[in-house]
Amino acid sequence: MEPRCKLWLEKDGKVTMSDYRLRLLQLIDETGSLSAAAEQLGLSYRRAWGKVRDLEEHLGSQLVDSASGGASGGGSRLTPEGVDLMRRYRRFSETAREAVDRAYRVEFSRGPSA
Amino acid sequence: MEPRCKLWLEKDGKVTMSDYRLRLLQLIDETGSLSAAAEQLGLSYRRAWGKVRDLEEHLGSQLVDSASGGASGGGSRLTPEGVDLMRRYRRFSETAREAVDRAYRVEFSRGPSA
Repeated sequence: MEPRCKLWLEKDGKVTMSDYRLRLLQLIDETGSLSAAAEQLGLSYRRAWGKVRDLEEHLGSQLVDSASGGASGGGSRLTPEGVDLMRRYRRFSETAREAVDRAYRVEFSRGPSA
Repeated sequence: MEPRCKLWLEKDGKVTMSDYRLRLLQLIDETGSLSAAAEQLGLSYRRAWGKVRDLEEHLGSQLVDSASGGASGGGSRLTPEGVDLMRRYRRFSETAREAVDRAYRVEFSRGPSA
């Protein structure tokens, strides 16, 4: 057996951050492009943009900065707040998963409980 | 914001234990009756019994002992293995949730990250 864990953050009953949204922010950060990030997730540009906008509304801060046109053909990058959220959530998720694994081992890797 | 966490255990890609199944075992333990437990969960007796049987098959041990008929009208109770699983999973779930909350506070209850 192995433990599984689905993590997310909520505010007023609405999902504000999740592993899926983390992946979206990470891909924007890596590719410098919302459309490239959307493509890797199998989302339309419109859908990916909607997710970023929802996230920004729920958190009340701008996370992605998009420049359109120009010689470079535009692009998207995370704002300092976006980078900060990505880093914090990634660490939260990693630490939480390690703790879940540890809690599992403590309870299930030994003989019958008292 | 607050962290949320859905926990379960898997074996060969199949769910072997979850918070919902814990609730079912706890209700059988408290009521001494599978039908009373099923009713509290809004399940049919047949459906609840199927869940117990699946759980027993996945784990390879008998968890519930059912006596039918007799003066007491039958009843169900957890076997020692059932009690053991209930206790371990409950502690695993509690410890894991506390750890997830702690990981959240560490990352999100302070100023911008480095």
